[in-house]
Amino acid sequence: MSNTLWLVLSLIAGIISIGVAYSFFRWVVKQDPGTERAQRVAGWIRDGARSYLKKLYSALGLLAGGLAVIIAIVFGLQQNFGYGVTMAITFIFGALCSTIAGYLGMTVAVEANVRSATAAGKGLNPAFNLAFKAGAVMGLAMVGLALTGMSLVFLITGDANLVLGFSFGASTLALLAKAGGGIYTKTADIAADLVGKVEVGIPEDDPRNPAVVADNVGDNVGDVAGMGADIFDSYVASSVAAMLLGAALTKLSPETRVLYTIFPLILCMLGAIAALIGVQFVQVKEGGKPGTSLNNGTIYTCLIFGVLVIAVVLLMDLDKAVMWATLAGLIVGVIIGFTSDFFTGDDRPPVVETARVSTSGAAVNIITGFSYGLISIAPSVVGIAAATLIAYFLADQSTVVNGVYGVGIAAVGMLAISGMIVSSDAYGPIVDNARGIAEMAGMSEDVIEVADVMDAAGNTAKAITKGFAISAAALTVLALFAAYSSEITIAVAEHGLPPIDMTMSLSNPLVIAAILLGALTPPLFSALTMLSVTHNAFDMIEEIRRQFRANPDILAGKAEPDYVKCVALASENALQSLILPACLAVVLPLVVGFLLGPEALGAFLGGSIVTGILFALLMANAGGTWDNAKKYIESGHFGGKGSEAHKAGVVGDTVGDPFKDTAGPSLNTLITVMSLVSSLFAPVIAAFHLFGG
Amino acid sequence: MSNTLWLVLSLIAGIISIGVAYSFFRWVVKQDPGTERAQRVAGWIRDGARSYLKKLYSALGLLAGGLAVIIAIVFGLQQNFGYGVTMAITFIFGALCSTIAGYLGMTVAVEANVRSATAAGKGLNPAFNLAFKAGAVMGLAMVGLALTGMSLVFLITGDANLVLGFSFGASTLALLAKAGGGIYTKTADIAADLVGKVEVGIPEDDPRNPAVVADNVGDNVGDVAGMGADIFDSYVASSVAAMLLGAALTKLSPETRVLYTIFPLILCMLGAIAALIGVQFVQVKEGGKPGTSLNNGTIYTCLIFGVLVIAVVLLMDLDKAVMWATLAGLIVGVIIGFTSDFFTGDDRPPVVETARVSTSGAAVNIITGFSYGLISIAPSVVGIAAATLIAYFLADQSTVVNGVYGVGIAAVGMLAISGMIVSSDAYGPIVDNARGIAEMAGMSEDVIEVADVMDAAGNTAKAITKGFAISAAALTVLALFAAYSSEITIAVAEHGLPPIDMTMSLSNPLVIAAILLGALTPPLFSALTMLSVTHNAFDMIEEIRRQFRANPDILAGKAEPDYVKCVALASENALQSLILPACLAVVLPLVVGFLLGPEALGAFLGGSIVTGILFALLMANAGGTWDNAKKYIESGHFGGKGSEAHKAGVVGDTVGDPFKDTAGPSLNTLITVMSLVSSLFAPVIAAFHLFGG
Repeated sequence: MSNTLWLVLSLIAGIISIGVAYSFFRWVVKQDPGTERAQRVAGWIRDGARSYLKKLYSALGLLAGGLAVIIAIVFGLQQNFGYGVTMAITFIFGALCSTIAGYLGMTVAVEANVRSATAAGKGLNPAFNLAFKAGAVMGLAMVGLALTGMSLVFLITGDANLVLGFSFGASTLALLAKAGGGIYTKTADIAADLVGKVEVGIPEDDPRNPAVVADNVGDNVGDVAGMGADIFDSYVASSVAAMLLGAALTKLSPETRVLYTIFPLILCMLGAIAALIGVQFVQVKEGGKPGTSLNNGTIYTCLIFGVLVIAVVLLMDLDKAVMWATLAGLIVGVIIGFTSDFFTGDDRPPVVETARVSTSGAAVNIITGFSYGLISIAPSVVGIAAATLIAYFLADQSTVVNGVYGVGIAAVGMLAISGMIVSSDAYGPIVDNARGIAEMAGMSEDVIEVADVMDAAGNTAKAITKGFAISAAALTVLALFAAYSSEITIAVAEHGLPPIDMTMSLSNPLVIAAILLGALTPPLFSALTMLSVTHNAFDMIEEIRRQFRANPDILAGKAEPDYVKCVALASENALQSLILPACLAVVLPLVVGFLLGPEALGAFLGGSIVTGILFALLMANAGGTWDNAKKYIESGHFGGKGSEAHKAGVVGDTVGDPFKDTAGPSLNTLITVMSLVSSLFAPVIAAFHLFGG
Repeated sequence: MSNTLWLVLSLIAGIISIGVAYSFFRWVVKQDPGTERAQRVAGWIRDGARSYLKKLYSALGLLAGGLAVIIAIVFGLQQNFGYGVTMAITFIFGALCSTIAGYLGMTVAVEANVRSATAAGKGLNPAFNLAFKAGAVMGLAMVGLALTGMSLVFLITGDANLVLGFSFGASTLALLAKAGGGIYTKTADIAADLVGKVEVGIPEDDPRNPAVVADNVGDNVGDVAGMGADIFDSYVASSVAAMLLGAALTKLSPETRVLYTIFPLILCMLGAIAALIGVQFVQVKEGGKPGTSLNNGTIYTCLIFGVLVIAVVLLMDLDKAVMWATLAGLIVGVIIGFTSDFFTGDDRPPVVETARVSTSGAAVNIITGFSYGLISIAPSVVGIAAATLIAYFLADQSTVVNGVYGVGIAAVGMLAISGMIVSSDAYGPIVDNARGIAEMAGMSEDVIEVADVMDAAGNTAKAITKGFAISAAALTVLALFAAYSSEITIAVAEHGLPPIDMTMSLSNPLVIAAILLGALTPPLFSALTMLSVTHNAFDMIEEIRRQFRANPDILAGKAEPDYVKCVALASENALQSLILPACLAVVLPLVVGFLLGPEALGAFLGGSIVTGILFALLMANAGGTWDNAKKYIESGHFGGKGSEAHKAGVVGDTVGDPFKDTAGPSLNTLITVMSLVSSLFAPVIAAFHLFGG
């Protein structure tokens, strides 16, 4: 089968994914939008989310526009004008595809929440199916747009470097969407909790709280749009890293080389097909368990994908090493996802122990949760190391491909089923919101109970997909890291530059120094985003208190608070807070590269990858442990709600919020963006740098 | 001047240091021991400290005995029986010297605390001078014993590898003393605070609190004995790393090579002389500032040491690169020490901001302090990278020495003034205890006020010396890392082994995997020690509550609580908690080395060094920020004592306790021990390993 045909098939699979996503979308908006009161509440959330997105996209427009001009000039000067402009266009195209996926996901989420709450009145079955279908809009649209975009760029240009431009565009949006959304959502959440629950003692999602709408908007902008952009970013980046490593297999015939270059796209296509089938399996009967159903969907998708990969590799007579690498990535990804559940799962020792010590106060709760977070790093890192080594050595045995290509393929193998993963993940904030709307719109206890059951399943799904997302990102950046080295070597050969040593030996003190500097970046980035959260939350707490003081009727439930003020405050502050971290991510690698040279930049990336993975896992898991320890206490253990242990648990949960939803998940994007910037500018850095070499 | 003469001079300088320390000791114990009540309180602390030390040394005896046998067998088989026994003896000798220094420091500390409290009745001048002289006993004894020990071993054997055995002995004790002391002190501190201050509302150091003696004992076993062992360990390890790198300068004539091998000892000797003079400058007049006086002592010591180094290098016509490397280490060490004060200093933005946000509760206080801790890593790591690069490239220009030797010398340059640093540092817990005794023995307000002034200076000194200690340890392990590679290469050459690739290139996936595994170790070690603290604190909280319940007269001040029970509980629990972390430190490098080979072990060490430095700085500085934010609130800001902000500040301080005094400082020792184990067993690992090479 010809390479072009494969590309066309990928393109078609992408378009079908988009089509199915759109048909789901049409179906969701046709469902019963509920009572007037419920629609009114949902309207606030929708308007809040749109006003934030509008600001986000303006910020993105500015940043992407500026970067596009720089890219056009730099590559125009370095190669030729046409190439520079093409690169800038693919960059914009990547940002656009990611934006559309995010926008679509958000739009359906803010329509689905109220409809799911309304459907909950008829039972678990219709409510769950509606929420999951809405989640699947995001999952399938994301995969569809990414696959369509990448296939199109390569079909037209045949140049993997231009797909890199596409990927960098997607990552730039992801950085803003993920970090900005993470700051927004936790600002609102913390402020709403601290004043609402702790100071004045009103329950979560109480409509008297001026920040309650901002809090629900936050779930959408942080968890739907942000998480979607994040996995879009990893999905595209892992594919492009493997494509670049495939294009570097210079010993192969041109035709075969192109086949291995587009093989990552073939894997994505198979994954998209598997996800399209897998989402059909996610259905729950009355009295059934939503969590089991979500997990079944993931397992079926994996099995179908595995079978498809084996079939294609055998039928096309491809090198079997790529099959093993794909399966290694897939299996390790699933194992990490499910084991990461151990550290954050209800009833498991870490959560129970953290809940138990809470009887001695908040400090001991913090120390214990943080310590389990540190320990939780171990199994995932061992898994990542194992997947890397297995994929590398299996592929290195092959006479066709090489070891680093195997690592790249393992990352694609993990991420190919993203359609299903994102669908489960986007389900979470939709049902979370549905519960909020049910509460705010004063729906019956039965409805809230159904919403609670759906919400609990969403949290478990989230823990699993989060572990999966971090591991996949880790393998992706390891592949990107290899791609960067390979890009430097290619640039030297192509442009006849003086030879550049890319050994990156730990015996070289410049390498050690660069590793240390790179290792600094993730903690620094985390600190900046978390300080933004507390700083912005402080502003919002003042605003909530001001509203309560200004009009005592609000707390009495006789007057409506000014929700819009809180939404606007959260939006503006979140976007302002992004400037410094975003600069850090884009500018630092360039400074290191142009100043200390290509080898030092490689070591810098290496250092940032190591601590990036560690801190991402620590923060995600510690946050999850605190969250569930609080819930465990609330379910009646160690004194239950209102006890001293519960107060301590709330402090832990609040500390965990920016850990698990702001700083932790943004680190994936940070290390991906830094690796992509480096790979993209590799030819330029190879030609111009002050020291090193 | 002959090499032997230099060694004899070093030996003499060491003996003089010990002599001066002893004369200070005699002077201290001759001072007025105060009222009967004060002596009684001091007696409890002394007995508690002794009973802990007894248990610690039994544990050490077991561990050191076991390791000595293993060392004798392994090196006996690998080389010859005599060499194995000699190595085991130097190992025991190292552990013994470190033990004596710690024991002496502890003994003088528990005598000096009550005398300093008593002298405070006569004014600041006599009280401060007594406390500092007592601190200097520890500082001078430590340097004296280390210098004497190393000089003696090299004078007798002429083999730097045997000095490595000595160093490993000292590190084994340090690991137990530092981690065990850290767990002990924070168990008692947290338990005493949580029940005393928070639950029943009695002030710090109140004699009604059953854990108050254990808390004061903790200051001694954690801060005096533990910190002393820690710097003893770095001091010896940096010297031996530079000595090994000197012995590897194979292009030099044997005589010159020995000169550069013992040059680190010459630097230690000059540092010891500088410290002997420097401590004389530390004196405070009535109304003077103790903090300024301590800083002056450090600055004079640095200046004198700098002048001596320049003089010796010029007079002996040594290579000037070693002079620059020494000065680079010294200057960067001092700069890092003073700048680390920025993040934890009173009235500085990080502390004030952390205190300010405490008005919104404990969670925001935790997030803010933690974030500043993350940011605080940056200046120190940049400083460490700069010192490494400067020392390397200056020394690499030389025709005599090489770059890695320069890095080793920079580390020695930082640590040579340890005599003065430890003296300032040991002063802290002595005056902290003096304050406690004054409170518990019911001394007058005037006395407590003087004790408070001395205590505040102790805290500032501690922040500076802590930054210094971590940076020095970082440079030390970088030098040890270089020494390990060099040991492998030497072993291959000497024993005619098959060649071993020690490139440790980041392009090698085995290297990446090993770096990831190594990077895991410090977080894992931190988690284990911190979980021990909360676990043990929980036990002690139960014990305190039990005593209060069993006898209500205790809280009424009419009956004496059972102090001994709490002391015993803390001791036993702390030592039991050590088993797993200690095994991790010694066994993991050996497992990696024998299983994955010498190159992977090198990468493993590299990974552990990077995250070890990062986490050590994060934990030390975040802990300091929380501590001082609480104090800032207590001094009347944001509502002062008893306010909501204060309650939040107490939670932050309690979280910071195991960060800054247990997990953080133990990481230095962890990475030193792992590097030493690797270097020591390098010849054996080079000969036997399963994979890699």
